[in-house]
Amino acid sequence: MSRVIVSGTARAELRAALTEGDLLDSSEDLERYGRDETEDLLHAPDVVVRPRSTDEVARIVRVCTEHQIPITPIGGRTGLSGGALSVYGGVGLALDRMNAIEHIDEHNLQVTVQPGVITQVLVDAVAAKGLYYAPDPSSKGSCTIGGNLAENAGGPRAVKYGVTRDNVLNLEVVLPSGEVIWTGANTLKNATGYDLTRLMVGSEGTLGIITKAVLRLLPLPKASRLMLVPFDSAIRACEAVSAVFRAGITPSALEFMERDAIDFTLAHVEGITIQVPDAVQAHLLIEVDGLHEEVLLRECEMILQVVEAHGCGEVLFAETSAEVDALWRLRRNVAVAVKAHTVYKEEDTVVPRYALPQLLAGVKAIGREYGFRSICYGHAGDGNLHINILKDGLSDAFWKEELPKAIRELFTLTVSLGGTLSGEHGIGLVQRPYMDIAFDRAQLELMRGIKRVFDPLGIMNPGKVLPDMD
Amino acid sequence: MSRVIVSGTARAELRAALTEGDLLDSSEDLERYGRDETEDLLHAPDVVVRPRSTDEVARIVRVCTEHQIPITPIGGRTGLSGGALSVYGGVGLALDRMNAIEHIDEHNLQVTVQPGVITQVLVDAVAAKGLYYAPDPSSKGSCTIGGNLAENAGGPRAVKYGVTRDNVLNLEVVLPSGEVIWTGANTLKNATGYDLTRLMVGSEGTLGIITKAVLRLLPLPKASRLMLVPFDSAIRACEAVSAVFRAGITPSALEFMERDAIDFTLAHVEGITIQVPDAVQAHLLIEVDGLHEEVLLRECEMILQVVEAHGCGEVLFAETSAEVDALWRLRRNVAVAVKAHTVYKEEDTVVPRYALPQLLAGVKAIGREYGFRSICYGHAGDGNLHINILKDGLSDAFWKEELPKAIRELFTLTVSLGGTLSGEHGIGLVQRPYMDIAFDRAQLELMRGIKRVFDPLGIMNPGKVLPDMD
Repeated sequence: MSRVIVSGTARAELRAALTEGDLLDSSEDLERYGRDETEDLLHAPDVVVRPRSTDEVARIVRVCTEHQIPITPIGGRTGLSGGALSVYGGVGLALDRMNAIEHIDEHNLQVTVQPGVITQVLVDAVAAKGLYYAPDPSSKGSCTIGGNLAENAGGPRAVKYGVTRDNVLNLEVVLPSGEVIWTGANTLKNATGYDLTRLMVGSEGTLGIITKAVLRLLPLPKASRLMLVPFDSAIRACEAVSAVFRAGITPSALEFMERDAIDFTLAHVEGITIQVPDAVQAHLLIEVDGLHEEVLLRECEMILQVVEAHGCGEVLFAETSAEVDALWRLRRNVAVAVKAHTVYKEEDTVVPRYALPQLLAGVKAIGREYGFRSICYGHAGDGNLHINILKDGLSDAFWKEELPKAIRELFTLTVSLGGTLSGEHGIGLVQRPYMDIAFDRAQLELMRGIKRVFDPLGIMNPGKVLPDMD
Repeated sequence: MSRVIVSGTARAELRAALTEGDLLDSSEDLERYGRDETEDLLHAPDVVVRPRSTDEVARIVRVCTEHQIPITPIGGRTGLSGGALSVYGGVGLALDRMNAIEHIDEHNLQVTVQPGVITQVLVDAVAAKGLYYAPDPSSKGSCTIGGNLAENAGGPRAVKYGVTRDNVLNLEVVLPSGEVIWTGANTLKNATGYDLTRLMVGSEGTLGIITKAVLRLLPLPKASRLMLVPFDSAIRACEAVSAVFRAGITPSALEFMERDAIDFTLAHVEGITIQVPDAVQAHLLIEVDGLHEEVLLRECEMILQVVEAHGCGEVLFAETSAEVDALWRLRRNVAVAVKAHTVYKEEDTVVPRYALPQLLAGVKAIGREYGFRSICYGHAGDGNLHINILKDGLSDAFWKEELPKAIRELFTLTVSLGGTLSGEHGIGLVQRPYMDIAFDRAQLELMRGIKRVFDPLGIMNPGKVLPDMD
């Protein structure tokens, strides 16, 4: 497929399809909707449409199907795998105007939302009623529920509360045919036919367009405790992670930061003052939450025993909400800090938790072999290690020719440890060339077959997730 | 498709495919493998094969594909929707000899098992290492993990720990082509391609044969408390259910039993002596579990306040393990007791939790309208109401001609309340005629398309889940 220009006729039909929404085609707008947070990539759509209703989405899709125009759904543009980039031009379907929280059901602990709702806005709205929407990707202040569903976003709390996929009950989807379906039912259990709901989650806009979601809510945890645990050895820090769970505790977050990640962040983010002794090589950020204050204190003591048994340094307990905020800002701003420092590539490897030390050691060995520096951090509690590879002084030639070989080695190691390419960022555009490491032909053919069932013309977010047929 | 007789040639090839496993074709064996727990149905396969390895399964499948012989995977034969019945004869693929627990991974809290492992055997094996496999269908003493995966089995603990689908990480599957794949990775998070794992779970053997599973384990809860709460009104009991969750508590079980369900069980099950005052119309059986004894006592007090506010009678707390066993036997034997009393049909409706009172009232109204008696009980915590319709003195003509209309009304009500046909039993054979109530043509066409991608010849468990094409 080559870049698709939207004809004057199709453009007119798209305008006609939009009774309330609007169409943008200024070069500024196209460029704005042609970027997300993935490296420095730009793939602008030929036209941006911003519908306000499911009906409008369905009408737009019918126009695109008729003219075989690629459609790229666009959410908060915070993606890290390029899922929202319009690599073949065509129509960028921005869902930012479909941002209503339609119904907070306090009796059934569920909420019905449009896809353009910003995750933090939803979290705050339900918190006001004493309820909790658990998934909290680091970009929660600007990412949207639709994007979270498309990429199966995670975040620090996934280790206790699951990823987006685990917190969705039912989805309204516009199919490439223009038909509108619900994928399931608004129930906690469902053994009725194939699970279209969880198939849609994480399909990155390649099967259809999510126009409404019924999400599961929980009672808002009443209290939490946060601690920062330093280690002189990154490997020992990783080993302590498994031991915490083995002790019977499920933290609401268990994050890992390499020394460099901390230094970068302290250097680039205002207003965080934490003294880090020279010997410290890594930090664990551990949070517990629940209903009962004194239980949390007890669990903190149990965690303390475990991490001390693994040779940690002096543990910092956040005493004030300001200290809590500072520690979370430290963790959430690592990527920002790295980005401020240099061009970089971020990998989103995930392995069984206990394999983290092997993965980390392997990443460093591959870095030494190829001559790149990496900064590793992430959600150690569920084995999800973000690997930021720094360009620094490396040549463009190396970045283009050699680095992909190193990444291939890195993913091959990840898969050999029982892991896979992406824990929460999705495959999108940038990890697509590596899908053959995680899946052989039989699995990819099944996925391609499913894609054809939903999208026979191949207009839904082309160039994403599945490698080209060979 | 009509009943398929396995030719002598195919039979010889099947024997040749079985180097360790065996082939059964005596009428006794065929009848035994032709029944599960669904009503009094019998659909015998023409041949039963009992492989001992994934290799043997793959070889058997290739023979069946070559000769276009239907394959019906058979687990513990405890199913309640007829999923394991060989409605078109052919090969009954019994997985009872593939029952190894291959590896309990104490570091990563996961276990690798073959599909023929009996659920209780797995639960006991991991408990011996201080670990917990949470899903506990009522038939756990005889059902198998493979069957649990095929039907997406639930059970009382699903309300806190999720159904089978929520506790699986990765599956080895033999495709109808004879190819062997893994569906995902052994990780807690996965955003790498389409979710084939959760698509396989609940597909009832219609897409392929699960030959191995990597399941998630948890630390074994250290303590639990169980209470039996009587109500003079079944509706008020149902209303109390939502209030318990709204209070911030997530019980490890929250079961509902109508008065009749209790009386039937007390009459038909030995050794349970519980005094039930005449005024009592329903019971809630509520369990909390966790790490800390005194937290459980506190939660019991909180629950007590909620149920008393809803007008419950005198609450019975189980003080000894004998009392705990008696209460669970009371709950788990309801279906057994009903079965001992009369022929019956069991529906597995599920709705958003707060809609339970409406569903219950509707069921009774439909019963009055059509003149049948029903006994309702189930997993109220996740809105899953089992409805046993008693044949008693009803005529065969009514049972055959009129009852399906009543069931149609019952499912129509369920779906109108945001619910669906099955919460944990699956669609299998007996609920298939009602799929059009839950799904319209567009959704069913997607499911059929997915079925064709996996099973182009339609030999995998034909006659199940999806209604015939019209």
